Amino acid sequence: METMNQSIIRYILCRVMEFAGFFLLLPCLVALIYKEQEGWVFLLVAAGCLLIGGIGKRWKPESTVFYAKEGFVTVSLSWILLSVIGAVPFYLTGEIPSYVDALFETISGLTTTGGTILTNVEVLSKCTQFWRCFTHWIGGMGVLVFILAILPLSGSYNMHLMRAESPGPSVGKLVPRVRNTAIILYGIYIVITIVEIFLLCIAGMPLYDAITLSFSTAGTGGFGILNSSIAEYSQAVQSIILIFMILCGVNFNVYYLFLIRKPKEAVKSEEVWLYLALMFGGALLITINIRDRFESLFETFHTALFHTASVMTTTGFSTVDFNLWPEFSKMIILFLTLIGACAGSTGGGFKVSRLLLMLKSVKNELSYVVHPRSIKKIHMDGHVVSDTVMKSTQIYLITYVIIYMISVLLLSLDKFDFVTNFSAVAANLNNVGPGFGVVGPAGNFSQYSVFSKFVLMFDMLTGRLELFPMLILFSPKTWKK
Amino acid sequence: METMNQSIIRYILCRVMEFAGFFLLLPCLVALIYKEQEGWVFLLVAAGCLLIGGIGKRWKPESTVFYAKEGFVTVSLSWILLSVIGAVPFYLTGEIPSYVDALFETISGLTTTGGTILTNVEVLSKCTQFWRCFTHWIGGMGVLVFILAILPLSGSYNMHLMRAESPGPSVGKLVPRVRNTAIILYGIYIVITIVEIFLLCIAGMPLYDAITLSFSTAGTGGFGILNSSIAEYSQAVQSIILIFMILCGVNFNVYYLFLIRKPKEAVKSEEVWLYLALMFGGALLITINIRDRFESLFETFHTALFHTASVMTTTGFSTVDFNLWPEFSKMIILFLTLIGACAGSTGGGFKVSRLLLMLKSVKNELSYVVHPRSIKKIHMDGHVVSDTVMKSTQIYLITYVIIYMISVLLLSLDKFDFVTNFSAVAANLNNVGPGFGVVGPAGNFSQYSVFSKFVLMFDMLTGRLELFPMLILFSPKTWKK
Repeated sequence: METMNQSIIRYILCRVMEFAGFFLLLPCLVALIYKEQEGWVFLLVAAGCLLIGGIGKRWKPESTVFYAKEGFVTVSLSWILLSVIGAVPFYLTGEIPSYVDALFETISGLTTTGGTILTNVEVLSKCTQFWRCFTHWIGGMGVLVFILAILPLSGSYNMHLMRAESPGPSVGKLVPRVRNTAIILYGIYIVITIVEIFLLCIAGMPLYDAITLSFSTAGTGGFGILNSSIAEYSQAVQSIILIFMILCGVNFNVYYLFLIRKPKEAVKSEEVWLYLALMFGGALLITINIRDRFESLFETFHTALFHTASVMTTTGFSTVDFNLWPEFSKMIILFLTLIGACAGSTGGGFKVSRLLLMLKSVKNELSYVVHPRSIKKIHMDGHVVSDTVMKSTQIYLITYVIIYMISVLLLSLDKFDFVTNFSAVAANLNNVGPGFGVVGPAGNFSQYSVFSKFVLMFDMLTGRLELFPMLILFSPKTWKK
Repeated sequence: METMNQSIIRYILCRVMEFAGFFLLLPCLVALIYKEQEGWVFLLVAAGCLLIGGIGKRWKPESTVFYAKEGFVTVSLSWILLSVIGAVPFYLTGEIPSYVDALFETISGLTTTGGTILTNVEVLSKCTQFWRCFTHWIGGMGVLVFILAILPLSGSYNMHLMRAESPGPSVGKLVPRVRNTAIILYGIYIVITIVEIFLLCIAGMPLYDAITLSFSTAGTGGFGILNSSIAEYSQAVQSIILIFMILCGVNFNVYYLFLIRKPKEAVKSEEVWLYLALMFGGALLITINIRDRFESLFETFHTALFHTASVMTTTGFSTVDFNLWPEFSKMIILFLTLIGACAGSTGGGFKVSRLLLMLKSVKNELSYVVHPRSIKKIHMDGHVVSDTVMKSTQIYLITYVIIYMISVLLLSLDKFDFVTNFSAVAANLNNVGPGFGVVGPAGNFSQYSVFSKFVLMFDMLTGRLELFPMLILFSPKTWKK
């Protein structure tokens, strides 16, 4: 057992702090345009970050040894650090009077969960709303992926950082060089975001609203700038947001394959087909179930699809309160919440590819118990899936279920019922946002105790980083000399 | 792909029918003692079974080819056949006016679930009550294990039948010969039952009550002969039942190891220690949580332990309505419901050994992702656990979760809330009996629709037979020529 290379972790955390400082200059710009006093707070925090990060990074790491362990710990600590910093402006502007609540809101933003502790988001200053939505955008693709794309870091740690932060059962390395992969991913991401802003403006939305909502959609976050989420916008705006939610829940590898003119390989993605099948299939069942609540069949299906897409992509926008739907529709929403988006997308959740691998492994096992002598390999997208990936996927489910159960148990110490607690964990561990009961689309997380909020914050970070980084960070074994 | 050897399946089903006939003579005897008219119905059904089974078995199987596939199909069909037959007397005596309800009650009995559709069990005739509790006893250890113990069957099918009916991640073969294993298991089972009957009589219980309750306890079923389950009995009786519930949830291999004077190996069983730790740990937490509801600390702990043991062993007896407990205690009850008893016991559920293997595999995986070059083997009770068993255990969880979710989704078409549906599936798939909400200890399953009852019947059988036999029976691939 090697000791942890703490100097390199400290060094990367300083770089993260520096980047946080740059990010915080954006809301300053917004404050400048709208002449808001709150801008000074953002400027102050930005300056602090740039100063500490800038000085800290001068102590170069003593050793460049960087293994998987350092990768997991660095990623976890980076996300925690960014959350702790990002919460400060919310608190200092007085717009979120409790620091714990501010932290919850920031983690919810960065992890693209989108569950809020605010009962009224419309009273926030423009720069704070901008920062709130921007956390979604930077968290969606990953902050370390961003740093990797910008900085010409060299050495073995690129891969370990990428591996620890990227979602999905296997590593999404598009091109041999990690840095180029990061650049391609962010390139696609930026293009999608700009196109959405453009289309929303054409649909008649003011530029500020279009930018903030596009951040929330592209990051599959779910923070809105109105208390009613998306309900008050026109049909055209809702449709644009629906399409971009669906697009951002797709594995970005597919877009890359289109870019390099391999459309045949792109459309072969079994994961994307299952993702679309579940989303549209679920919407169809809900449509049949709630047909009598809407005037036209189109409106019913549009509403149903908006919400199946919203929870599957783990965005969490809503146009109606699905908490009031019949039990069957609510169950479909809940189960799609649990499944989540495609691997390699900006969406969270358990991931469709994991579900797909699991369905294949059950089918394989059924065939194995009947014919113990015939051992078949599992294929996906025409390739054999290695036993290591299969094992990791299966253990992912076990870990997921254990964390889920412990979280529900801890929340049950609070004052809410099983439906609220069970769906709160579903919504936070999968980075969706709204659940059922007290935490439904019309409610929020403000009524939970401080202890419960910490449980949910842990769930959000653990879910976003795909379980293992956070578990490794908090495992005593990691820190043993 | 070989075609199914249907002639041998037919032959074994005829033998099962014959045994059902013999079993049905027992309530006839009870009716004779208590001079009840209902006895004629049991005699009629018994005669019918003996006749059909006796004639049918004369057509000897054309081929003795018997593989795993035939094993799974035979076991599933045997259980369905026994359920269909066992329900007839309930229906014909008019004591359960609907045949679907009678079938639900019989499946609940045989699978040792103990969830009922009856609102008043005290009005049943003595012989019907006896039959109801006897289904627990025969289902507890398994009907095919019983047949294997009695009949000098030879050939390869012993092992396949045993494998398909026995609970747990690996096959509990105590001695090389399957038949001897079956005899030993039933021997221990009968001794435990007789000792309990004896102790309950000493505690002042009438012999009839002692026999029926011992059947329900030893089979970890949960049907009582009073509407209040166990609440009206004395403290002494409750303690005896508590002890025997715990004993019957232990892996019977442990008793065998004591019998052959290997106590050191017996106490090494990691599964039993975890089983006891979870049961007593859960009881301790509940005691703290509900301390103010009882007069003495002993009474609080006794009540808490009675219910953690009752749900973990999947018996389902109750002395109070835990539906009225605080949310935290209810969650502990729910999660212990999901875990279940030890493999190789008469209890159902997911099994403690599977949980143990999963915890070990998570720990192993955490160590693997940190040090990808160090691959460690997983050990249990001092032995290496093979990759095949680990893989099966992991896939068991996947299958379990999928069946669980589909069941909850189908139940949500009915008129009940999420708590009722979620806990109903937990209680039936794990063969426990009571859940929460409408199906809590004070409620029952009578209000579910016929469709929902069939979903729950499928869950009970699937849970008791450990998922795969029922899935293989209903898989179209199994029946392809």
